[in-house]
Amino acid sequence: MDVRNAASSPTRRASPDYFTGTVFQDVINEAPAPARVRALRVSFEPGARTNWHTHPLGQTLHVLSGVGRVQAEGGPLREILPGDTVWISPGEKHWHGAAPGHAMVHLAIQESLDGEQAVWLERVTDDVYNAAPAA
Amino acid sequence: MDVRNAASSPTRRASPDYFTGTVFQDVINEAPAPARVRALRVSFEPGARTNWHTHPLGQTLHVLSGVGRVQAEGGPLREILPGDTVWISPGEKHWHGAAPGHAMVHLAIQESLDGEQAVWLERVTDDVYNAAPAA
Repeated sequence: MDVRNAASSPTRRASPDYFTGTVFQDVINEAPAPARVRALRVSFEPGARTNWHTHPLGQTLHVLSGVGRVQAEGGPLREILPGDTVWISPGEKHWHGAAPGHAMVHLAIQESLDGEQAVWLERVTDDVYNAAPAA
Repeated sequence: MDVRNAASSPTRRASPDYFTGTVFQDVINEAPAPARVRALRVSFEPGARTNWHTHPLGQTLHVLSGVGRVQAEGGPLREILPGDTVWISPGEKHWHGAAPGHAMVHLAIQESLDGEQAVWLERVTDDVYNAAPAA
């Protein structure tokens, strides 16, 4: 058994190669094999979002605070609020982030496959990001 | 992609077969195969705790509020506080719950193996539960 407090691991800034805007990540745990789950808390400034990307074994998002946006390729732009859970299927191309004018913090839980948690793709353009969310 | 709000799934009371005291569980997600992660929020009243148990692929706990206790078999009783993360190894016999006189809420993240998330064992006696935590 391993017990770690919140001060034991520094907050890291998410790579500008994979995110637009300022995004901070706090790792909750990276379970060693044979487990494969990774859990982190991700804090997006207003306007910040991931690039388009996929996860080999899917991803669970759970909004803790603020107002966010999420979209699967070919699907509607969805507004997400605290308490909302998003399940993204394995290989489903998507993006997520804060809403314009709102910060957002979510948990992100995914499983690595052969050491890979995500496949990063192109940036989310301002036109895509600023579209009106579905009702 | 599936988006669910917090009202879509009712809070359930944890089984008295596996828990002492009043414990509520809110499922965050149960990812479908080939994914295997299950995430939930667990709320313990003061004095409430799990039975001794194990997880086939380990478990990550992350304390959200209150004061709690966790112990692996043969190890010290540990006090846990908000922001603390506990990693329990696959097959490691342990228990967790609120501290005496304090409520506690934690995230629980584990992976199922052949449909099994946990193996439930005997109750945590009052003597074990009320021991002084390690410094």
